[in-house]
Amino acid sequence: MIRDINSPDDLKKLSVKQLPKLCEEIRQLLVDTVLSTGGHLASNLGVVELTVALHYVFDSSDKIVWDVGHQSYVHKILTGRLSRFATLRQKDGLGGFPRMDESMTDSFNTGHASTAISAALGIAKARDLKGEDYNVVAVVGDGALTGGLAYEGLNNVGNTKMLIVVNDNNMSIAENVGSATLNMSKIRVGSYDRNKERLKKFLSKIPLLGKPTYKFLHWCKRRVKMSYGENSYFDKFDIKYIGAIDGNDVGDLVYFLTKIKNNVTKPTVLHVLTKKGKGYKPAEDDPEQFHSVGKTGAVLSSETVGETLCQLAQHNNICAITAAMQDAVGLGEMAKQFPDRVFDVGIAEEHAVTFAAGLATGGVKPYVAIYSTFLQRAFDQIQHDVSLQNLPVTFLLDRSGLVGSDGATHQGIYDLSYLTCIPNMTVWTPASYSQLKSMIEKSVEFPTPLAIRYAKTLSSDKLPFDGNWNVLLDGKHIHLLAVGNNMLEVAIRVKQDYLLKAQVVNVTTVKPLDSVYLETINDGDVVVALEENVRQGGFGSLVKDYFADRNVKVLGFAVGDSVAQGTVDEQMKMCGLDAESVGRYLLQTLKNEI
Amino acid sequence: MIRDINSPDDLKKLSVKQLPKLCEEIRQLLVDTVLSTGGHLASNLGVVELTVALHYVFDSSDKIVWDVGHQSYVHKILTGRLSRFATLRQKDGLGGFPRMDESMTDSFNTGHASTAISAALGIAKARDLKGEDYNVVAVVGDGALTGGLAYEGLNNVGNTKMLIVVNDNNMSIAENVGSATLNMSKIRVGSYDRNKERLKKFLSKIPLLGKPTYKFLHWCKRRVKMSYGENSYFDKFDIKYIGAIDGNDVGDLVYFLTKIKNNVTKPTVLHVLTKKGKGYKPAEDDPEQFHSVGKTGAVLSSETVGETLCQLAQHNNICAITAAMQDAVGLGEMAKQFPDRVFDVGIAEEHAVTFAAGLATGGVKPYVAIYSTFLQRAFDQIQHDVSLQNLPVTFLLDRSGLVGSDGATHQGIYDLSYLTCIPNMTVWTPASYSQLKSMIEKSVEFPTPLAIRYAKTLSSDKLPFDGNWNVLLDGKHIHLLAVGNNMLEVAIRVKQDYLLKAQVVNVTTVKPLDSVYLETINDGDVVVALEENVRQGGFGSLVKDYFADRNVKVLGFAVGDSVAQGTVDEQMKMCGLDAESVGRYLLQTLKNEI
Repeated sequence: MIRDINSPDDLKKLSVKQLPKLCEEIRQLLVDTVLSTGGHLASNLGVVELTVALHYVFDSSDKIVWDVGHQSYVHKILTGRLSRFATLRQKDGLGGFPRMDESMTDSFNTGHASTAISAALGIAKARDLKGEDYNVVAVVGDGALTGGLAYEGLNNVGNTKMLIVVNDNNMSIAENVGSATLNMSKIRVGSYDRNKERLKKFLSKIPLLGKPTYKFLHWCKRRVKMSYGENSYFDKFDIKYIGAIDGNDVGDLVYFLTKIKNNVTKPTVLHVLTKKGKGYKPAEDDPEQFHSVGKTGAVLSSETVGETLCQLAQHNNICAITAAMQDAVGLGEMAKQFPDRVFDVGIAEEHAVTFAAGLATGGVKPYVAIYSTFLQRAFDQIQHDVSLQNLPVTFLLDRSGLVGSDGATHQGIYDLSYLTCIPNMTVWTPASYSQLKSMIEKSVEFPTPLAIRYAKTLSSDKLPFDGNWNVLLDGKHIHLLAVGNNMLEVAIRVKQDYLLKAQVVNVTTVKPLDSVYLETINDGDVVVALEENVRQGGFGSLVKDYFADRNVKVLGFAVGDSVAQGTVDEQMKMCGLDAESVGRYLLQTLKNEI
Repeated sequence: MIRDINSPDDLKKLSVKQLPKLCEEIRQLLVDTVLSTGGHLASNLGVVELTVALHYVFDSSDKIVWDVGHQSYVHKILTGRLSRFATLRQKDGLGGFPRMDESMTDSFNTGHASTAISAALGIAKARDLKGEDYNVVAVVGDGALTGGLAYEGLNNVGNTKMLIVVNDNNMSIAENVGSATLNMSKIRVGSYDRNKERLKKFLSKIPLLGKPTYKFLHWCKRRVKMSYGENSYFDKFDIKYIGAIDGNDVGDLVYFLTKIKNNVTKPTVLHVLTKKGKGYKPAEDDPEQFHSVGKTGAVLSSETVGETLCQLAQHNNICAITAAMQDAVGLGEMAKQFPDRVFDVGIAEEHAVTFAAGLATGGVKPYVAIYSTFLQRAFDQIQHDVSLQNLPVTFLLDRSGLVGSDGATHQGIYDLSYLTCIPNMTVWTPASYSQLKSMIEKSVEFPTPLAIRYAKTLSSDKLPFDGNWNVLLDGKHIHLLAVGNNMLEVAIRVKQDYLLKAQVVNVTTVKPLDSVYLETINDGDVVVALEENVRQGGFGSLVKDYFADRNVKVLGFAVGDSVAQGTVDEQMKMCGLDAESVGRYLLQTLKNEI
C-alpha cells in the first residue's frame, strides 16, 4: 500500500479503515531504514498516525510546521520522497529535518526547538494580511513547550486562526522537566490506553449490546472532548483546547482534525498523547537510547566530561546544568551520584545560563553543558548575565565544529565567533581527551567566564595542557596553527605529505591567543590558521588581527558560511579543510616561500 | 527624614506609620534629581513604597534581584547612595542599573528584561546547596513576564523557597501586550483604588462604628488575600500566589511581606499593583513619555525610520514588528495608519524574529525594529530561522554603537560581530538620515536577510547610498574607513588636524565589504578602520582578513570589550576613539609612512 502513496492526494483515496494498515507499513519502513541510515527513530515512530491523519485531513495548500523537525520522516515519506528515503541524512540525500528547498510541502525549516508556534503564527498573519485562505498547523512536542520561545509564541497568538497540535509523549529528548509541562496533562498514555482497552474488553463481553454500547460511548466521548475540553494553561492565552486524545489512534485523529478543520475558527490546541518509539519494542522501552540512532562504540568527549565532573564533585562545590540532554552531554552519572547538583532545566538554554549566573553569584561553581549549536540560543545571557558581571561560569560546548549528518541547523561552526566577541570570555579548545580533562580540572578555580569547546570525539593521544599552545612537530618559517583534533590531524598530514618544513602547533586557547608563541614568529614567516568555524570572527580572524600591522602573511582555512549534511570527512572536503585541499593550496600559494 | 537613612538599618528604626512620609520625601527627591540628571522616572516613582517596604521587612543578608533594574533608584537611595544620587548615570557616577561593584546590596546586575527569576532561582539554589539561610526576592514587572526567559524561570522554580514580587503596572515600557499578561489580573489599580477610597469614605460617615468597621474589614481582607489567593497562571507552576494588593500602600506591603517572610516556606508570588509615575502628575498621565527622561529636541533616526516605513507601506506589502518599544523605534505613526501591519509582541525578541521569518515565508515583507543591544537576545533566531533559510527579513537596529549613560548592559557595540558571522546576512551602516532612508527604500526589494544598524542620531548631510562606499575627502596612501556618523566625523577631523593627505571614506556596507574600493588600495598603503564595535569580529577584523596575505598595514580603532557609562563623547575618549586620540596615535605610528 505504501508504494502507492506518491503524494497526500493518493493518501486521500484510502478509506479511514485502511489507514491503520498503512501506518503499520510506514512503521516497518522506518525501523528498517533508520536502523541502517541512522537518524531519529523513536520520535518518528510516535507520530506515524498523527502525520498520516494530518495529510489525510488537510490540503496541499495548507501549511504544516514541524517543531524541531526530527519527527518529519513520515511527512517526507508521504510527500513524494519515499524513493529517496534511504538517502536520509547522507551527502546530497534527504535531510533529517524539513527543508523548503527539498519540497514545497516543507513549509518552514526547523532544527532547533520551540520555533513552530511563532513561525506558524507569522505564516497565518501573512495569510490574513493577504486575504488568502488556508490552514496553518504547528506540531509541537511537549518538550518544546518548556522553551520560552514557545511561550512567547502562545502569548501572541491572539485571535489568529491556527491549529497547534501538542504532541505529548511526556518526553522532550530526555524526560521532561518543569512544573508547567508536568501539570499539562494528568492523563498519560499508559493509563489512558489501559483504561480504553479495559472498557472495550469489558463491553465486548456483553452479547449484542456490547459493541454498539462501546461505539456509542466512544461517540459520546469524542463529542464531549470536542466541545468541552479545558486546560488552564492554554485558557490563559484564550486558545481553544481539545484533548487529550490518543495520538496513536488514527481514526480518532482523523475525526478531531476534520472537525477542527471544518468548524473551528479560533486558534486551537489539539492535545494528542503519543508513545515515543511506538510499535518497536526496543525503542518503546528506551526511547532516549533510540532518540538518535547512529554509530556506537566510539569513545565520546561526553564521557570524559562526565567522569571528570564526577571526580571534581567529590571535593568541590560544583554543580552542572543541562538543557534537556542530560545523558547526551555526559551528566548521567553525576546526576545519579549527586542528584541535587545536576539541573536539567528543559529546552531552556536562556534560563540555563542566567540560572548559572545566579548560582555563581551565590557561591557555587556552575558548569553549563550544552551543545555548541544550542548554546547560541543564550548568546545574550552569556554576554549580559555572565560575562559583563565577570562570573566564574564554565561552559562546556559539546558537538563543536562540523557535526555531520544533522545538516546546516546543527553545525557547531559559529561558537568561536559568538564567544570571542563577548567581554571577559576565555575560550579553550582541547584536541584530546587528556586535554579536555585537564581543562575541566583547571576550570574549577578559574575566576572568570570560560568556554571549553570540543568535538563529539577527540584524539586519544596524551596531549598536555598548561595554558600555552603545544608545538607538536618542529619546523621553520611556516606555522600550521590547528584548532581541535580534526584540524590537528590535517596539519600533521599536511606537514608529512606537502610541507615538510612546517611547524605543527596544537592551539589550546583561542581567547586569549598565546602571545608568547606568536612573538616567536618572524617577519616574513607564514602563518596558517586551521579551524572548524566560520571565517568571520573565528580563530583565523584573531590571528590576522594580531599580525595586521606586521609583515607576516596569514592564511586562514575555515568553514563556509553554512554547511550541508554529510559525514564530517565529507564536510571537511566540501569546505576545503581536508589535508589534500589544504596541502595543495599551500604548495601552490607558497611556492616562492618554500 | 530621608537624610537620616544611610542604610536599611536606619530605615528599620522608623515606625510603619512614618513610612508614608518617607515615601513622599523620596518621591520628591526622585522628581527633582531625575528631571535634571535624566534617567528612568516613571518606573521609580511607581516602586517607592515597594522598595521601602522590602528594605523595611527584609534583612541585609537577604538578596533582592531587580528585573531590568531601571527601577532601582529608590533601592540605591536607601542603601547608602543618597549623597551620590545626583551623579546618576554620569561618568564615574552611580549607575542607572544595579551594579554589584557599586554596592554589596546589589545582588545581581540587570539591564535587559526577564532575567530576575532565573538569577534569583540560581542564588536560592546556591543557598540551599551550601546550607545557608537567607531570603531571595525577585522583583519583576508584568512586562518582563512577556519574555520567554521569565517563563522558563517560573517553570524551573519547583519547590525552591523564593519570593517573586510581580510589580504590575499594566505596562512594560509601552503598554503590555499578549494574552497571558492581559489576563493576569482582572483588578487594575484604577478601580481598586477607587473602590477602596469609596468604602473608606462611606464607613467614615458612620459615627463611632465607622472607623473600627473599616479597620476590621481591612484586617479581614488582608487575611483572606494572604490565605486564599489564586491565579491560574502561577498555579500552573505550583507557586503560591498572594494578591493582588495595592503596591502603593506601604502599610499593606509591610504586612504582606512580613507574613511571607515569617510564615511561608514554599515559592511565592506577591502580586502588587502599582501606578507608574505615581505622585507626579505629568508622569502619571503619560508614563511612556516619562519612562526615560533625557535631552529632547534632537532629530532622531527613529523618525526617519517611521516616516520611510509609512511611505513604503502605502504601496508595498510590508509590516513591522517591535518588542515593547513601538514609539521608541519609530513605529508609532505607522501603527496609527496601518494598525494591522504593526505588531508589538511584548518583550519577546526571540518570537519577534521567528514570527518575522514566518511572515516572510507567507509572502509579506517584515521589518524587525529592535535596539541593537536587545536584538542580540534573538541571535539564534536570526541565524537559524531567518538566515539559514535566506529569508528577506530586514532588521532595523537602532541605538547601535556607543549609547552613553545606560552603561555596559545597553551598548550597541556587539552587533557587527554577531551579525557578520551569520550566513547570508548583509549589513549596512548609514551615517546620515538620507542614507538611512535610502537604505530602507532599497530594502523593500532586497531578497535576502539584511541588517541596517544606526545610532540614535545621524548626520543631516545628504550623503548618498548606491551600495558602494563613498569617498568623502580625497587623499593618498592612507585610507580612513569610517563606519557610522560619529566615526565619520572623527575621520574628517583627523584628516584636517593631523593627516592632511589621508582619504576619508564613508563605509556604508560592512558585509560584504566594498571590494571595488578595497582593490584600489596599493601595497604599502595604510588602512585605518574606525568603528563603534568591539574589535573582535567587527569591521576592522573583516578588513584585516581581506589584507591578511597582502603587504597592506591595517590599523583598527574599536571599542574595548565593554564600556562604562558616560556621554557618548566621553565614551569615545575612554576607548581612544576621539579625533585627538586617533590622530595622535596615527601621527606617532605612521611617522615613517607620512
